[in-house]
Amino acid sequence: MKGHVSLVGAGPGDPGLLTRTAIARLRAADFVLYDALVDDRILRYARRAQRFYVGKRAGRHAMTQTAIQGLMIRAARRGRRVVRLKGGDPFVFGRGGEEALALQRAGVPYDVVPGISSAIAAPAAAGIPVTHRGVSAAFLVVSGHEEEAFANAIAQLQPNGVTVVVLMGLGRSAAIACRLIDRGWSRGTPAAVIVDASRPGQQVWRGTLDQLVTEAVAVDAGGAGTIVIGDVVAIGLQEAGIEFPIEALCQ
Amino acid sequence: MKGHVSLVGAGPGDPGLLTRTAIARLRAADFVLYDALVDDRILRYARRAQRFYVGKRAGRHAMTQTAIQGLMIRAARRGRRVVRLKGGDPFVFGRGGEEALALQRAGVPYDVVPGISSAIAAPAAAGIPVTHRGVSAAFLVVSGHEEEAFANAIAQLQPNGVTVVVLMGLGRSAAIACRLIDRGWSRGTPAAVIVDASRPGQQVWRGTLDQLVTEAVAVDAGGAGTIVIGDVVAIGLQEAGIEFPIEALCQ
Repeated sequence: MKGHVSLVGAGPGDPGLLTRTAIARLRAADFVLYDALVDDRILRYARRAQRFYVGKRAGRHAMTQTAIQGLMIRAARRGRRVVRLKGGDPFVFGRGGEEALALQRAGVPYDVVPGISSAIAAPAAAGIPVTHRGVSAAFLVVSGHEEEAFANAIAQLQPNGVTVVVLMGLGRSAAIACRLIDRGWSRGTPAAVIVDASRPGQQVWRGTLDQLVTEAVAVDAGGAGTIVIGDVVAIGLQEAGIEFPIEALCQ
Repeated sequence: MKGHVSLVGAGPGDPGLLTRTAIARLRAADFVLYDALVDDRILRYARRAQRFYVGKRAGRHAMTQTAIQGLMIRAARRGRRVVRLKGGDPFVFGRGGEEALALQRAGVPYDVVPGISSAIAAPAAAGIPVTHRGVSAAFLVVSGHEEEAFANAIAQLQPNGVTVVVLMGLGRSAAIACRLIDRGWSRGTPAAVIVDASRPGQQVWRGTLDQLVTEAVAVDAGGAGTIVIGDVVAIGLQEAGIEFPIEALCQ
């Protein structure tokens, strides 16, 4: 039996947003390495697998990136079917590129299974399309996690030119809004924050850049958050979502 | 029986990249309106449904946007379960926002089922992560379909600052590269074109902006294409993809 690694995107949270291939990889897995923000209902697909948490705890990494990569490589070399499960998409701020390079260098067979990224799905869950004819013809996706990287990315943009989607910026929303205002973005630019998108506890805040600075956006410490900035926030679409009977999903 | 509409993302082509909810909506559908680039293998999930093609033929729209919206609304009002199936994600250049607004105004219950966007998955299929630590901390997604909209979006960006992903720019790749060079982007900036990503006939071209101008990128007229521009193209990752036995998908 030849081992391999699948870098699998778990999507934003709702197990219904897993892909068919992601489910197949989880079902076939012997060993699953998963991050914070991966829902328990998703991990349950990996019935046969040993599950190993490698995410952050209280701001610290549970394991270094090198240790995670070493663990995947050793498990695959012992013939195990490894799934490296990441929130959203593995190649959007997920360090998936680094892990794929490590696997390639080690000669371990691997594949990448894309996931639904919160960059697009979290705004959608709040009724916000990242592009909209006559309003926004492009969108930028950036991480809000590190001040300097965020500032550098925003410095590449003219103010109010495109929709900006900030992932991992929840604890820094006021600083992010201040940075954009400093760069010349209009204080009245519509903005939204979506917390725990697609999960049962989803919360949506809507306002302006100014209000993002002054209003404390109530957030659970452990929640995942997406910030959207631009006129697409204000096109007038409400949160949609029909409640579908469970039979529709079980057919 | 109350009718409704689901705006469903079909992903880049591979039926394995459909979400579980998308499959459930297709299986339950009475009526499916689908675009060009939606794979036959995906339509087959809609076994019970009447299927209606509303995409472009030979550069012309088969139906106007208003007519498509009217058709959805009338079908839902007659109690039908309608799926509006779009390639990729409904809210990424899919006019999904317009359709959702029309449904909201008409008081028709609807939901949005995000799909895997080619903006992220097509580069991934070629071994290109849209973000990579130390290389790119942000990416811009833009449509290449219309010269003016593309030029306006690119004018919002400093040259060589972030990864640029161009959707629907396949027939215009030379003009797109010229526009970026005119705007000050380095002629040697790595670039890639991925045609029919995740489908059996996937093709990948890699080069530089200069070469994108001078080399005719061989393309099937009907193919879907994604252009990626930036240093992430050259991090050294190859196309991955283990051939998985069919049993792995059928478990």
